[in-house]
Amino acid sequence: MNCPLCQLNPKDVIWENASFAVIDARQNDIPGYVRLVAKQHLAEMTDFSLSDQKKIWELLSCIEKVMRQTMHPQKVNLAEFGNMVPHLHWHIIPRYKQDAWFPESVWAPKIREVSRETLEKNQQLALQFFKELKTALSGS
Amino acid sequence: MNCPLCQLNPKDVIWENASFAVIDARQNDIPGYVRLVAKQHLAEMTDFSLSDQKKIWELLSCIEKVMRQTMHPQKVNLAEFGNMVPHLHWHIIPRYKQDAWFPESVWAPKIREVSRETLEKNQQLALQFFKELKTALSGS
Repeated sequence: MNCPLCQLNPKDVIWENASFAVIDARQNDIPGYVRLVAKQHLAEMTDFSLSDQKKIWELLSCIEKVMRQTMHPQKVNLAEFGNMVPHLHWHIIPRYKQDAWFPESVWAPKIREVSRETLEKNQQLALQFFKELKTALSGS
Repeated sequence: MNCPLCQLNPKDVIWENASFAVIDARQNDIPGYVRLVAKQHLAEMTDFSLSDQKKIWELLSCIEKVMRQTMHPQKVNLAEFGNMVPHLHWHIIPRYKQDAWFPESVWAPKIREVSRETLEKNQQLALQFFKELKTALSGS
C-alpha cells in the first residue's frame, strides 16, 4: 500500500493524538488551510465507528471555531472527498472575498491573483491560528 | 433578504422536519446528488448550537449510509461551502470512476461526457436511494 496519508510529514503536523492529526495543508495561496487526517486507513465517514465519527465532528467544530476567532474569514469551507487518496481527510479552508477563487470553490480554476501583502498578512493570522488550535486541542 | 434556501421548492424536498430538509440537487450529470439544508438562515456550522450541530452530523451520517447501500458509489463526497449562498447547506455526492469529473471534484472543469445509458441506470439507483432515505429519516 502506497498511501501518502498513512505516513505524515512531522513538519506539517499542528496537533495529533493516537487516532487523528491536524496538518498544515501548505497551500501557499491560502494560509491557514488545514487538513484533519484519520490515522486509520479508511475511506468513508461511515467506515468509522459512531464514536469515532462523533470525535471527528467535534474536532471539525473546534477547528472551525478557532479558525473563525483567529482568522475572521468571510466563510469557512469544509470538504471530504478522497477520490484520489481514499484515506479519510477533511479540508478546512478559510475563505476571503479577495482570495484567488472566491466565491468559487478552491477546486475551480483561479479567478484572480492575490497580492503578496495580503498573503503575508494572512500568513501571520495562520500562525496565530495554528498556535491557538494546538492549545484548544491539547487533551483531545 | 433574498435567500434561495430560505424558500425551498416543495418538489425538490425528499425529507424534512421542523429544522432541516434533504433536497434533490437536480444535478443532471450526477443522479443521487442531494443537499442537506438547515431551515435557520445561519451560515457556519459553528453558528448552530452544539445540539443542532450533532443533529446535522447524524443526518449526514445517515444520508451517506443509505447512499452507499443503495447506489454503491466509488466514493461519497461531502462539502459545505456557502460562499455564494451563506445559508448552511451540505452537498452529499455519489461519485463513480466514470462520472464527468472523477477523480477531480465536481467543482473542477468536466473531464469527460457520461453516456445516456449510464445516467439512466444511475437515475434508477437514485430513485431507490431517495425512497429508502425517506424511510430511514422518518421520525428524525
